[in-house]
Amino acid sequence: MSGTLAIVGLGPGAPELQTPQATAALQSATDLVGYGSYLARVPSRPGQARHTSGNGDELQRARHALALAAAGRRVAVVSSGDPGVFAMASTVFQAIESGETEWREIAVEVVPGISAMFAAAARIGAPLGHDFCAISLSDNLQPWDDVLRRLTAAAGAGFVIALYNPASRARPTQFAAALKALRGILPATTPLAFASAVGSAEERIDIVTLAAADPARADMRTLVLIGSPATRRIERRHARPWLYTPRQSEDVSP
Amino acid sequence: MSGTLAIVGLGPGAPELQTPQATAALQSATDLVGYGSYLARVPSRPGQARHTSGNGDELQRARHALALAAAGRRVAVVSSGDPGVFAMASTVFQAIESGETEWREIAVEVVPGISAMFAAAARIGAPLGHDFCAISLSDNLQPWDDVLRRLTAAAGAGFVIALYNPASRARPTQFAAALKALRGILPATTPLAFASAVGSAEERIDIVTLAAADPARADMRTLVLIGSPATRRIERRHARPWLYTPRQSEDVSP
Repeated sequence: MSGTLAIVGLGPGAPELQTPQATAALQSATDLVGYGSYLARVPSRPGQARHTSGNGDELQRARHALALAAAGRRVAVVSSGDPGVFAMASTVFQAIESGETEWREIAVEVVPGISAMFAAAARIGAPLGHDFCAISLSDNLQPWDDVLRRLTAAAGAGFVIALYNPASRARPTQFAAALKALRGILPATTPLAFASAVGSAEERIDIVTLAAADPARADMRTLVLIGSPATRRIERRHARPWLYTPRQSEDVSP
Repeated sequence: MSGTLAIVGLGPGAPELQTPQATAALQSATDLVGYGSYLARVPSRPGQARHTSGNGDELQRARHALALAAAGRRVAVVSSGDPGVFAMASTVFQAIESGETEWREIAVEVVPGISAMFAAAARIGAPLGHDFCAISLSDNLQPWDDVLRRLTAAAGAGFVIALYNPASRARPTQFAAALKALRGILPATTPLAFASAVGSAEERIDIVTLAAADPARADMRTLVLIGSPATRRIERRHARPWLYTPRQSEDVSP
């Protein structure tokens, strides 16, 4: 078996945030596998096969990619952001563990990318400058109580929180429930940022407070960053304020 | 004032993991500011000034960069990994908040990079595939009790943990104390990975268990990844095992 499988992170969308390693992995692949809107970002090449799938059947997509690699193809599975963060890399390894024994011998390479949380943080200042966590609010794949437990533990312990998948049409109420839980723990003035479609022409960033955050502001393309009690806001005259979290904790005054 | 300040993430070290945006920001700068070993990674350009500093005086380095930008220069502050993660971006905004009022009007751009934790995770599998956090073990800038509180809260709530700055010559004992605390919370078999100098010729990755982890294995160039009870290990015949954390939590069996 001489096939290979690269799981490639495109970054948040802008070509200038895609690493040369990702570009090379995409160019050398015989087969691209991925969700349609991610594949649409990759320039087409003559002779390169494209296997487009919907946003749902990720385990099936991973198995298809592994079967192609086992048959000797050079496969690239395309992911947005970093493939290791709430994305395809975990799904591919899950498919390997539960799949054909020979799949364990495939040369698998994970090609990291700029994750949505770092792209958003960069546009906002340095909100992730001290200890932070990333939590997916989707309960398609996990019990909601577990999500809430991690959220409240993180807020109570002083982590800055990056919330992935805060809301979708199928899950309109969970983000409101999350905000309610956080309002019981963190000061009302805690900075909160909504970052949507970062790096695209539709980018929209709003910096508010935990008390003033409108649950309806979040959708599928939104990342929500919630400060810790140490996170600070710098006002500017002609521009959006900056948020940053100091690396010292002397400044902490909840 | 027409100066600009870019805070640029080089990524973990390999040029193929540095984004085109970072490369462009470095090339267009009139002045590079940074720690010597990071500046050494940036090719020199005729006419471009280099301001090298030691690893300690970061706030002073940030103020120097801001003063240069305020004087009209195009400044790039060079950071390893992602500049927003335990690095220079937070320090620059702290310097702005505590500095000259006019510094708030400088055009500041944070240029994200591949952080050490994602580069390490990519070499190991998909250990950060579900909710995770990043904690800096250094107590140069914070009380040790706060570090321990966040560490135990994260482990107890089921986060995968990326430990930055686990040890240095000045802080040889804290990582052992952290392991001891985690062993009181997590199963002995919890996967733990040491990732040192990822992407360089000296890269060394060891995958062990929480019970078997040797505190002396960690140094300044090491990132430590500690699984959650859901993190799984896939054995391979001729290679290091893979670690991944499933996005479902049905598999959780601590």
